[in-house]
Amino acid sequence: MLTLHSYFRSSASYRVRIALNLKGLPYTYAPVHLLKDGGQQHTADYQRVNPAQLVPTLVDDGHAIGQSLAIMEYLEETHPEPPLMPRDALGRARVRSLAQSVACEIHPLNNLRVLQYLDNDLKVNETTKATWYRHWISLGFTAIEAMLANSPSTGTYCHGNTPGLADCCLIPQISNSRRFDTPLDAFPTIQRIEQACLALDAFAKAAPQLQPDAV
Amino acid sequence: MLTLHSYFRSSASYRVRIALNLKGLPYTYAPVHLLKDGGQQHTADYQRVNPAQLVPTLVDDGHAIGQSLAIMEYLEETHPEPPLMPRDALGRARVRSLAQSVACEIHPLNNLRVLQYLDNDLKVNETTKATWYRHWISLGFTAIEAMLANSPSTGTYCHGNTPGLADCCLIPQISNSRRFDTPLDAFPTIQRIEQACLALDAFAKAAPQLQPDAV
Repeated sequence: MLTLHSYFRSSASYRVRIALNLKGLPYTYAPVHLLKDGGQQHTADYQRVNPAQLVPTLVDDGHAIGQSLAIMEYLEETHPEPPLMPRDALGRARVRSLAQSVACEIHPLNNLRVLQYLDNDLKVNETTKATWYRHWISLGFTAIEAMLANSPSTGTYCHGNTPGLADCCLIPQISNSRRFDTPLDAFPTIQRIEQACLALDAFAKAAPQLQPDAV
Repeated sequence: MLTLHSYFRSSASYRVRIALNLKGLPYTYAPVHLLKDGGQQHTADYQRVNPAQLVPTLVDDGHAIGQSLAIMEYLEETHPEPPLMPRDALGRARVRSLAQSVACEIHPLNNLRVLQYLDNDLKVNETTKATWYRHWISLGFTAIEAMLANSPSTGTYCHGNTPGLADCCLIPQISNSRRFDTPLDAFPTIQRIEQACLALDAFAKAAPQLQPDAV
């Protein structure tokens, strides 16, 4: 019995929704609205589920797991088929490295609480905030595009012809980037992979606007 | 034959140095100075090793792997003994979640290129920059302290009585936090684990000031 505490627009939640869909695992969707009520992730009830006050959290039979990459690795270990990573250690390292190039280099700089800090504490204007946002996406995507375009391991998807962990991270980040009108022309491989992924039900059904809490 | 491209002060490099030491793996240290020559991570030679222009990179028999968490997972898969993670899936998820609470939530906001952006683009003063730095450490450590203090799985180290992946991430982050005089009084469990880790050779020998490129 799996429950996903998720916010429709959270790209870390979106990653896990794709992974659950790729593995064909049914789950209960528990919405956590990051803006309503001063942020529902800060309630005492949710802090008992996730002391970091972040989404997503996966609860498996009463056991709560935070951090999207840890959740996806857990799903891979507990439900190995279909796999989200190849079998060979170097291939797995490549996939994790791509996933972390999103999750450790791009997304942490552009998530809600950082944008709120730029607004409320650094008091930057909207233009400066948008420039910040695009800067980190552009820098991160430049690296990822090089990793993808120059590798014979890249296939229809980030690694070979099976969608996996790296794609679960990349697609939500592209979706995010469009919200701030980030130019993507310099990233043809990333765009090609996005098209391939969005043609799959597992990705399409995980989209923010299709979640029960989408407004 | 392992080579680690590292910068002594990089906490992501520091993580991998600890992991290599815990596993007793000898390696060649290849220094990449992040400040000299406009940043040696940006040279054409280094970009061929790591297109993301970040440290660390592990090169194993000609194969380059970027991203510290991906490198440590690779070491775990290719050199399983001694393990950096427990055997059970829930325990592994907990360890990864703790590691990522450092690597995805704290460190990305405080690494060199972000501090340079605050300086050069947002033109904030030193006080504002130090406040930013401490804010993200304090927020992240508050979450990690709660995860550690409230769990029966916490032992001498982050998970049980064997040092592992979470400790590899936590100790360098504490080291970093001291550079900006971040108060740690509110984090007694984190401080206790730090003391236990620093008593071990694997951690002590990985310290920034003991690396060949330390200045």
